[in-house]
Amino acid sequence: MTDENHLLPAEPAQRQIARELYQHAKDLPLISPHGHVDPVLLADDQPFPDPARLFVVPDHYVTRMLASQGIPPARLGVPSVDGSAVETDGRAIWRLLAENWRLFRGTPSRLWTEKVLAEVFGISARLGADTADEIYDELSARLAEPEFRPRALFTKFNIEVLATTESPLDELQAHAKLAADGWGGPGGRVITTFRPDNLVDPDWPGWAERVAELGALTGLDVGTYSGFLAALRSRREAFIEAGATSSDHGHLTARTVVLDEAEAAVLYRKAIGGGASEADAETFRGHMLVEFARMSLDDGLVMQLHPGSVRNHNRDLYQRHGRDTGGDIPSATDYVHALRPLLDAHGTDPRLRVVLYTLDETAFSRELAPLAGGYPSLYLGAPWWFLDSPNALRRFREAVTETAGFYNTSGFVDDTRAFCSIPARHDVARRVDAGYLAKLVTEGTLPLDEAAETIADLAYHLPKRVFRLAEKA
Amino acid sequence: MTDENHLLPAEPAQRQIARELYQHAKDLPLISPHGHVDPVLLADDQPFPDPARLFVVPDHYVTRMLASQGIPPARLGVPSVDGSAVETDGRAIWRLLAENWRLFRGTPSRLWTEKVLAEVFGISARLGADTADEIYDELSARLAEPEFRPRALFTKFNIEVLATTESPLDELQAHAKLAADGWGGPGGRVITTFRPDNLVDPDWPGWAERVAELGALTGLDVGTYSGFLAALRSRREAFIEAGATSSDHGHLTARTVVLDEAEAAVLYRKAIGGGASEADAETFRGHMLVEFARMSLDDGLVMQLHPGSVRNHNRDLYQRHGRDTGGDIPSATDYVHALRPLLDAHGTDPRLRVVLYTLDETAFSRELAPLAGGYPSLYLGAPWWFLDSPNALRRFREAVTETAGFYNTSGFVDDTRAFCSIPARHDVARRVDAGYLAKLVTEGTLPLDEAAETIADLAYHLPKRVFRLAEKA
Amino acid sequence: MTDENHLLPAEPAQRQIARELYQHAKDLPLISPHGHVDPVLLADDQPFPDPARLFVVPDHYVTRMLASQGIPPARLGVPSVDGSAVETDGRAIWRLLAENWRLFRGTPSRLWTEKVLAEVFGISARLGADTADEIYDELSARLAEPEFRPRALFTKFNIEVLATTESPLDELQAHAKLAADGWGGPGGRVITTFRPDNLVDPDWPGWAERVAELGALTGLDVGTYSGFLAALRSRREAFIEAGATSSDHGHLTARTVVLDEAEAAVLYRKAIGGGASEADAETFRGHMLVEFARMSLDDGLVMQLHPGSVRNHNRDLYQRHGRDTGGDIPSATDYVHALRPLLDAHGTDPRLRVVLYTLDETAFSRELAPLAGGYPSLYLGAPWWFLDSPNALRRFREAVTETAGFYNTSGFVDDTRAFCSIPARHDVARRVDAGYLAKLVTEGTLPLDEAAETIADLAYHLPKRVFRLAEKA
Repeated sequence: MTDENHLLPAEPAQRQIARELYQHAKDLPLISPHGHVDPVLLADDQPFPDPARLFVVPDHYVTRMLASQGIPPARLGVPSVDGSAVETDGRAIWRLLAENWRLFRGTPSRLWTEKVLAEVFGISARLGADTADEIYDELSARLAEPEFRPRALFTKFNIEVLATTESPLDELQAHAKLAADGWGGPGGRVITTFRPDNLVDPDWPGWAERVAELGALTGLDVGTYSGFLAALRSRREAFIEAGATSSDHGHLTARTVVLDEAEAAVLYRKAIGGGASEADAETFRGHMLVEFARMSLDDGLVMQLHPGSVRNHNRDLYQRHGRDTGGDIPSATDYVHALRPLLDAHGTDPRLRVVLYTLDETAFSRELAPLAGGYPSLYLGAPWWFLDSPNALRRFREAVTETAGFYNTSGFVDDTRAFCSIPARHDVARRVDAGYLAKLVTEGTLPLDEAAETIADLAYHLPKRVFRLAEKA
Repeated sequence: MTDENHLLPAEPAQRQIARELYQHAKDLPLISPHGHVDPVLLADDQPFPDPARLFVVPDHYVTRMLASQGIPPARLGVPSVDGSAVETDGRAIWRLLAENWRLFRGTPSRLWTEKVLAEVFGISARLGADTADEIYDELSARLAEPEFRPRALFTKFNIEVLATTESPLDELQAHAKLAADGWGGPGGRVITTFRPDNLVDPDWPGWAERVAELGALTGLDVGTYSGFLAALRSRREAFIEAGATSSDHGHLTARTVVLDEAEAAVLYRKAIGGGASEADAETFRGHMLVEFARMSLDDGLVMQLHPGSVRNHNRDLYQRHGRDTGGDIPSATDYVHALRPLLDAHGTDPRLRVVLYTLDETAFSRELAPLAGGYPSLYLGAPWWFLDSPNALRRFREAVTETAGFYNTSGFVDDTRAFCSIPARHDVARRVDAGYLAKLVTEGTLPLDEAAETIADLAYHLPKRVFRLAEKA
Repeated sequence: MTDENHLLPAEPAQRQIARELYQHAKDLPLISPHGHVDPVLLADDQPFPDPARLFVVPDHYVTRMLASQGIPPARLGVPSVDGSAVETDGRAIWRLLAENWRLFRGTPSRLWTEKVLAEVFGISARLGADTADEIYDELSARLAEPEFRPRALFTKFNIEVLATTESPLDELQAHAKLAADGWGGPGGRVITTFRPDNLVDPDWPGWAERVAELGALTGLDVGTYSGFLAALRSRREAFIEAGATSSDHGHLTARTVVLDEAEAAVLYRKAIGGGASEADAETFRGHMLVEFARMSLDDGLVMQLHPGSVRNHNRDLYQRHGRDTGGDIPSATDYVHALRPLLDAHGTDPRLRVVLYTLDETAFSRELAPLAGGYPSLYLGAPWWFLDSPNALRRFREAVTETAGFYNTSGFVDDTRAFCSIPARHDVARRVDAGYLAKLVTEGTLPLDEAAETIADLAYHLPKRVFRLAEKA
C-alpha cells in the first residue's frame, strides 16, 4: 500500500496537519463529473483484456513518452489508421514498458500506475525488466477474477457518480443498458456528457456528413439553421434523459461570438455548402458556444470549456495512428477577450454555469481566477491533462486561491479513459489539497476546523454542487 | 494579536531566521508611495461610518467575491449608477459578509480583515453568522471613539508618508487643508500623485469635456496641442506643490510611441474633434507616456506605469454600478516591445525614473526583471492588485531577484483605498520578505547580517529613495 | 569552501537525502556541450589578465547590474564602439564592483563569484569596499602562478569536454592548435560548435559581405542558393573535423518555414540583392532552420535552438558598446506553431535531434515539455541565460518533469564565457537537481536508488548522449 505520507509536505509539523486533513477527505465517495471511460465497459461488465491493453495501448500519456524516446506506437499496439500490422502480443508490449520504466520517473503516469498496481491489484513488486513477466502474470490472473470486473471495481472504488463523454450522434445505447440495470439515467451512477464539437466545427473533416446524420437521428430538417439548433436541442434532451448534467466543448480557442439569428443562418448555409473559410469556421464555433450557453439557460446543462489544445500536432503520428494518440500540444490561450461577448450577454445570469479549464497555466492567476472570482456564472475547473499531476495541482492552488478562493473552483476532475486509475487520481488530488491547506494552517491563515471542512468540500461537496449532481440525485 | 510566526516558513531553522529578520523590519515606519485613500478622510478627520461602509461597501475585492457566488452588489450597498435603491442597512450588509465568510478562506481579504479586526480594533472573535452582530457592535463602539479617527490611526499606524492619487482636474483642496494643518505639502505626511489617465485617453467618454475643464482650471488654451501640454505641466507643478513626487499611468497596454511635435499636434486636433479611431487613441496614449517622461526629466516626478487591466469587463456590473467596482480583469501584457520607443529615447537618462507594475506574472522573469536589471531608469514595482497577497509576493521575489536583485525593486506599495488595512498589508509584505531572505540564509547564499540590512532596505529605505521621498523630506 | 548544505532543501530529512544524492553527482566529470569560452584561451594557455578582466569587464551579467544602478559600462572597462576611452585600471574597476556588491544579493552572479573565489582561488574573505584591495592582490598573485593557467584549471575543474561556439567564417585556428596539442578535434577535450546566425539573417548589417566571405573561404560560388548551401555544408564538415557535434541557432523567434528549392532560391537572390523585406528575412531565417535540420540528417550535428531574445534592446548601450554587452531582453516565445513546419517534415525522423531552449518560462509546461515528451527528435535544453540560477533551475524541473520526465531533457548547459565559473555553475545545477530528486524521494514517488541513478544521468551521462559526445569519444 502507499505510504501514508505519500505526497504530503516534508516538514513534520505541516505533514502532521496534512495527514489529519487528509483523513477528512480520504474515504469520501468519488465524484467524477468529467472523463472518457467507455460506457460500454460498465454496460457490458466484461473482464478487462490483458494488462497491456489496460495500461499501455489506450493511454496516450504512456505511448507518447515511449515514442519520445524512439519506440514507435506500432510496437506498443496502437491501432493503425491504414490497418497495417501493429504489435498484438500483450506481453511483448508490457515488456517494452517495463524495460523503459525509467523514462517515467517523476511523472504522474508512474505514480498512477504504481498506485493502481499496489492498491487495486495488490502488486508491490517494482516494475522493471526483471519483474515484467511476473507482474504481467499476476495482473492477468487478477483480471480473470470476478471481483476485478468493471462494476465490481466501480463499487470497490467508492465511485458515487461517473460521467462519460459522448457525441450527440451517439445513440446512448450503453447508457440505456446501464439505466435498465439501475446504473444509469438521471441521478444514476453512470451518466453521459453532451460533447458536440464535431457538429459545430466546419473545419473538421466530414462535418456536413455528420450534420446530415444528426438530421437523420433526430428526424429534424438540418438544412436550415433553426432546424440545426432544434436538432441539437433534441439531442441535449436525450442526453439529459441519460443522466447528463453538463456539456463539454473542446475548441482550439475560447473565442465566443454573438451573431444575430440572420447572420448565424447565413454562416451556417455557407458552411454546409462547403464555402466556409477558416475565419468563418472560427466565427461559427465561437457563435455556437454562445448558442449552447443560451440552451443551458433553458435546460440547465453546465457548460465545460476546454480550449487551447492544438490537435494532431504530430503529423506523422496522426497519419499513422489518427486522433487522440498523444499528438496534441497546448498553446497560449486568451480568456479575457475571448469570453467577453458571452459574458456580456449572459455572464451574470443566475441560470448560466460555465466551468473553465486551461492547458496554459499562465491564465490561472492572470485571467481565470479573476474571472471566476468575479462572475457568478464562472467556475474554475481542475488542472487539465498535462497539468493533472502533483506539482501542477499545487501550482494551481497557489495561483488561484488568493483571487478566487476555494469555492469558485469546481473540485477535481480526473478526465481519464483509464478506469482503474480513477481512485489513484482522486487520491493524489486529495493529498495535494491536504498539503496546501496544511500550509495555510501552519502559516496561521486558516484554522484547522475550517481547513477540514474545506478539504471535504473540495473532494466531494463542491463538484457535486457545481456540476448539479446533487440536484438530480 | 497575530501569531508571531504568521506567514513565516514552516521549517523550524528557517522560521527562526525569518523571525529574527522580521524584527529588523517590524517597527520601521510605513512608506506608502502609491494608494487610493481619499484625502478628505484625513483632511476632515471625521469618524469612520459604520463597519459595513468601512470593510465591505467600498472594497471591490470583497464585493466581487460575494458577487461571484451570486450575491448582487446592490445587496452589499454598492451605489447604483441610476440611483436605484441599494441596501443601506450596515448591519444587514455586515451579516451577509459574515454568513459567507467561508468564501474568503485562503484569500488576502480574509487575512487583512482579520489582522485589522485583531490589531487595530482588538477583536479576536472569529467572524461568522453567530458572531456577526457582536463584532458589528464592538466595531461600531470603537469607531465612535476619538482614538479611532483617521489622524489618530495614521499616527498609531506609524505611517511616515502616504500618497493619495488624484486627477489633474482635482483642485487639491483636501491636500491644501492638510498642508494648512501641517500634514501635507512637499515632504509632508500626506501627499498627492498626478494621475492624468482620463485626460490622455480619447476613448474615455467625456474626454474632450475634461480637456476643456483642464483649460478652464489652468487658464491656458487647450485648443492647441502645445497649450494642452502647457496645461498638463501647470497641473504637475500644482501637484508638486501639494507634495507629489510621482505620477501614475494606468493604460490598457504599456505601449509607448514617439511622435514629433507636428504629428502629435495633428493627432490631438483629430481627437479633440472627435475623429480619432481606436488606433489613433492608442497612439495618442502611447505618445503621451513619452511626453510625460519628458516632463519628468524636467520636474523630477517618478513615473509609475500600471498597464494590463481590461477595464469594466463585467458589462452588467459596469452598467449597474459603474467603474472600479470589481469588473476589471488582467490580460497578457508585453513590455519588451511596448517600452522600447520610450527607452530608446530616454532609457539611460539619469533624470528619468519609471516604476513598472504588472498584473501578468509571466512578465516578471521574462521581461520586467531583465529590463529593471539593465536600465538605470527602471524599477520594478511591487506585485499589484490581484497579486498583492502572500503567495504572489513570494512568487515575485522568486521570479525577479535572481535577475534584478533586490535594489532594482521599489519596495512594497499597498495600493489600497482601505485605510485601516495599510499596516496589515505592509506587515504581510515584511513577513514574506523575511521568509524569502531566510531561505537565502539557510541555503547559504546570503549572510544573516546582509539579509538583515536588506529587509530594512526593502521595508523602508528603498521605497523612500526610489519614490524620491527622502529628497523632499 | 562552500557549506556542504549549500542550496540543498532546508527540511532536515529532505536535506539528508539531498546530500546523499549529491554525492552521486559531485565528482563526475563536467560535460559542457554549449558555451562561449574563447578557444584562444585554451589554445594559447596564457595567464589570465587581472581580476577585473576576469570577473567584470567581459561579464554582461555583472556590468548590466551595475549599469542598472547608474554605473556606466565605460567606468567598468567595457570597450567602446568608437574607441573612446574607458576605464583601464583593473583595480579601479574591481573596487567599483566591491563597493556595489550589495546589488548582487540574491543573484547567481554573487553565487558564482563567491564560489570561484573560494573554490578556485581559496579566498574566503567577503567582498566589500574594505576587502577589495586585499582580494584584488590575492587574485593577482594567484593568476600569475602556473597552476592557474587555463589548461591547468581545465584539468583541475575535471572538465571532460568543453564546446566553444564559432561562426562558420571562423577559420578554427585555435581549434587546430588545440588538436595539434592533443586537446581538440573529434572526441577531444575542446571542440567547436557551428553557429551560422550571422550568415542566415539578411537583417543583420553586413550580411551580404559575410556571405561573400563565406564564398571566399570555401572557394564555392555563393552567388546561387545551391552554392550557398554547399558552402555551409562545407563549413559544417570543417567544424565536424574540429570536433563539433552540434550547431547552434539563436533566432528572434522559433519560426520554421518549408520552402521548395525554387522558392528558396528566389528569396536568396532577393536578399543578396538587398531587396528583402523584414518579412522576407524572417521567412528566410525560418527556412534556413529547416535546411540546417536537413543537413543534420546527413551529418549528424545536433541542432540547438535558442529563440526569444530581443537583441540590442538598450539602444544607448548598443551604440556605445556594441552587441553582447547586456542589452538583450527576452520576449514571449511561441513554439507550438513556430516549430510545426519543421516537425511535420522531419519530427519523427530518428536521425534528427533538436535541443530547445527558452527565455520564456511559460513555455516550459505549456509547450516545451509536451513537445519534448512527444517527439523523438526533441530534447529540452537547460534553463538558459537569465534562467540559469537556483530558483529558475528548480522551477524548470517542477514545470517539465511531470510531462517530459528527466530523459527528454538534455542535462545542464553552462552557456558561459566565464571559464573559471564553469565548475560553480555545474555544481549549482547538481545541487538543485539533488534537492528536486530528494523531494520526490521524501514524497514517496521515487525510490532512493533510482534517484541516485537519475542524478548521475542528469549530471553526466545524459548530456554526453544527447549531444552525441559519447559516440565520438
